[in-house]
Amino acid sequence: MTELITTIRTMNLISQRYHQQGKSIGFVPTMGSLHEGHLEMMKQSASENDITVVSIFVNPLQFGPNEDLDNYPRDIDSDFEKAQSVGVDYVFYPSEQEMYPERPTIEVKAGELATVLEGKQRPGHFDGVVTVVNKLFNIVRPQRAYFGKKDAQQLAIVEKMVDDFNQQVQIVPIDIIREADGLAKSSRNVYLTEQERTEAPHLYQSLKLAHSLYEDGERNSDKIIAETTAYIKAHTSADIETVAIYSYPELVEQSHISGSIFISLAVKFTQARLIDNIIIKSEES
Amino acid sequence: MTELITTIRTMNLISQRYHQQGKSIGFVPTMGSLHEGHLEMMKQSASENDITVVSIFVNPLQFGPNEDLDNYPRDIDSDFEKAQSVGVDYVFYPSEQEMYPERPTIEVKAGELATVLEGKQRPGHFDGVVTVVNKLFNIVRPQRAYFGKKDAQQLAIVEKMVDDFNQQVQIVPIDIIREADGLAKSSRNVYLTEQERTEAPHLYQSLKLAHSLYEDGERNSDKIIAETTAYIKAHTSADIETVAIYSYPELVEQSHISGSIFISLAVKFTQARLIDNIIIKSEES
Repeated sequence: MTELITTIRTMNLISQRYHQQGKSIGFVPTMGSLHEGHLEMMKQSASENDITVVSIFVNPLQFGPNEDLDNYPRDIDSDFEKAQSVGVDYVFYPSEQEMYPERPTIEVKAGELATVLEGKQRPGHFDGVVTVVNKLFNIVRPQRAYFGKKDAQQLAIVEKMVDDFNQQVQIVPIDIIREADGLAKSSRNVYLTEQERTEAPHLYQSLKLAHSLYEDGERNSDKIIAETTAYIKAHTSADIETVAIYSYPELVEQSHISGSIFISLAVKFTQARLIDNIIIKSEES
Repeated sequence: MTELITTIRTMNLISQRYHQQGKSIGFVPTMGSLHEGHLEMMKQSASENDITVVSIFVNPLQFGPNEDLDNYPRDIDSDFEKAQSVGVDYVFYPSEQEMYPERPTIEVKAGELATVLEGKQRPGHFDGVVTVVNKLFNIVRPQRAYFGKKDAQQLAIVEKMVDDFNQQVQIVPIDIIREADGLAKSSRNVYLTEQERTEAPHLYQSLKLAHSLYEDGERNSDKIIAETTAYIKAHTSADIETVAIYSYPELVEQSHISGSIFISLAVKFTQARLIDNIIIKSEES
């Protein structure tokens, strides 16, 4: 049976009980609107831990003033059922008042890792992410926490936070889950028009193209970016915001590819801003 | 027997073991150079918890470029003996390399509470404090942590951090411990010349004067500050940096005293910068 928990106090007590029993807690933080990508993380958590906790909290701090906070899809009943179906033990579903009873003045800042890519496009976004993830880690005290590679920059930032803060949690990265046609699963895919939905899989195709160029020996970032960009332009109506190659997890822009890198996309359809990426681990260094 | 622990990994494992045993951990973070004020905190921790951990770490991040980091008094052997004498179970004594193996880029900022008083005089000081205290809380995972009221602003900031971060630790404030003549115990008192040492107790006398004015019904901050300042000038050779009245724990400057407040002093002798304060809890509101 999955239990719904709405207060921090109760979540603390549950966590303490399992710590005392020597049981491991796996944690999947989400903003709800659960899709296969989330469920995959929950399944992996359930297989690796005694107890799995999923949080559902649409964190206002990580939305910009012109972003989709108000319209972000919310459906707790459906989310709860989905979590239950994959063996989640606790769904932590706090109110905004519970999470932010007063304005936080001791700030967590994502720093220089947030000055590029998504962080540059969305000022304050990653400050909001680390603020809430830090709180959630303290509330749930998991042994393992699961984050998707789709948000590769977020993953790198959370891993750095765990190191910098000495948090006793292991971050487990989960591969991107895709639709049959290659579109990365996302809560924001529902914003796509029918036409855009048929175009969106080309984002992944463009990344595969980039990867094949890399595999054929291309190491000049500009050349890979140019071909990837041209491919997206030719096959979609989206506005291209970012096609970029950065080291991973250090997030430094690379003109010549040497170590581990990721190729990152962000595009805007009429109502949906989508991101995708591939991480390429160096086998050279 | 007191044990000396130098690695985060070992400290984590010890903490986990006591959590599993359902035992409570009391924690006293220090920069060493232990005096009666510290020992009082350790005694109280030992009386309230199954296990007491003391950290000794001179945190470079909380010193300004022109402050006394290099000259800050250090004597681990003497400190260890003192901790042992009051029943401390573990002395956590990490190296700088252990605490900061790489530059932390995910930042903890003390925010607006650090824009006044000590925070204004010492830019970056409280950012360094919350950065290290957050790390230490994650490493030690205490049920209770002990902080002296001498650093009243630090105490207010750490309490706000615990709330904002949902840290599962209770902050226990400890009264200022004074020499027989009233001088607040401080690791920095050793910097005083013989002459200055005879003058320094007048700081506390000036606070007692301020308190008596308050008790006689004075609620105008400027008047109390003026008399306090005049007293210090008349009885010491110190340069007066701050004599101020702020609400507590909100840290808002008060021209008219109503709720709980603290009267805060900072003065400079030739080599020693000393602080002192009294907190007056409102019985009116």
